Amino acid sequence: MTEKVLKPFTIDFDLITGYSQAKNSTKRPLSKMKGMYADDVAFDSAIQNDDPLVYEFYELDLPETPGNLLFGTSIVYPGKVGDEYFMTKGHFHTILDTGEVYYCLSGYGAMLMENPEGDWDIQYFSPGKAVYVPPRYAHRSINLGNETLVTFFTFRADAGHDYGTIETKGYRKLVVERDGKPEIIDNPKWKE
Amino acid sequence: MTEKVLKPFTIDFDLITGYSQAKNSTKRPLSKMKGMYADDVAFDSAIQNDDPLVYEFYELDLPETPGNLLFGTSIVYPGKVGDEYFMTKGHFHTILDTGEVYYCLSGYGAMLMENPEGDWDIQYFSPGKAVYVPPRYAHRSINLGNETLVTFFTFRADAGHDYGTIETKGYRKLVVERDGKPEIIDNPKWKE
Ligand SMILES: [Mn+2]
Ligand SMILES: [Mn+2]
Repeated sequence: MTEKVLKPFTIDFDLITGYSQAKNSTKRPLSKMKGMYADDVAFDSAIQNDDPLVYEFYELDLPETPGNLLFGTSIVYPGKVGDEYFMTKGHFHTILDTGEVYYCLSGYGAMLMENPEGDWDIQYFSPGKAVYVPPRYAHRSINLGNETLVTFFTFRADAGHDYGTIETKGYRKLVVERDGKPEIIDNPKWKE
Repeated sequence: MTEKVLKPFTIDFDLITGYSQAKNSTKRPLSKMKGMYADDVAFDSAIQNDDPLVYEFYELDLPETPGNLLFGTSIVYPGKVGDEYFMTKGHFHTILDTGEVYYCLSGYGAMLMENPEGDWDIQYFSPGKAVYVPPRYAHRSINLGNETLVTFFTFRADAGHDYGTIETKGYRKLVVERDGKPEIIDNPKWKE
């Protein structure tokens, strides 16, 4: 036996709102995302104004072994910073060769992905769509609609989160509103 | 790089019915479950009558590596064989030390679990309840209601399915209807 015996359990996540009654979520107000949006003026103005809650998610406390899975909901609120849609920080997994599943429960949005080899990809969320983030891809959820974007995610418990690479280099691509519609553009702040 | 690069993709699973428009499901009519229900007379009579579809589920075709995840929906129909509720075959993972997440989308039921060390457990499904099957536990979904039980599952792509142990030994416990309610009893067919 390579792992301590863990007992079965149940936890609730509302199928529409994503909220759990059993746990507190981790919350990301805009002020925790300095430098991640293209428009610094709009960013500073927004955090001085009301510092909106951009997203929240649940983190389970399970043994971080390759045989366990972590899961929960991610809840991204509607909004923009300048013309850039509200999004999560995005991260690589520390164990790069591990994937993740996101199943959309409500709202409309996208998963923006890129890997160290230079490939990037976008997949769209609407209720009932499951997006597979394969091993090696950094992933960021983006709310492209007027309602809250709620997804149920699962990943290997030992995968780990590497936020630093994205914080330092940024993403290759941004999703901004142009003529009322989402458009994918090159990130002017991106560093090779 | 230890794995071939796999591209991101999206697949639909209806949030109520569990059905995908993109794929065909794997179907388990009652005739494929010989010996798994306690009441052999009721079993033989049911398969000679209309051989009802007990459950179906989706199997993705991804590389079966430790870094990938397989996911989809499991759909268990309401019904009984004698007084025993419709259920899945149940299985251990071939790589025993791997867990699985089941998130209930609709219906009412249970996940019956047992491990080789002799521990058993039951957790209940209703919409919005996520059940964690820890490493080492065989798992079987049981429909305890009058509607279809639909869950969204995720597990490690290399975990593998060991159906044989359950087919040979059975489960320690059964869930049967007594006075209109589910009751957990010892399985008379169970072999140590
Ligand atoms: Mn992740
Ligand atoms: Mn399984």
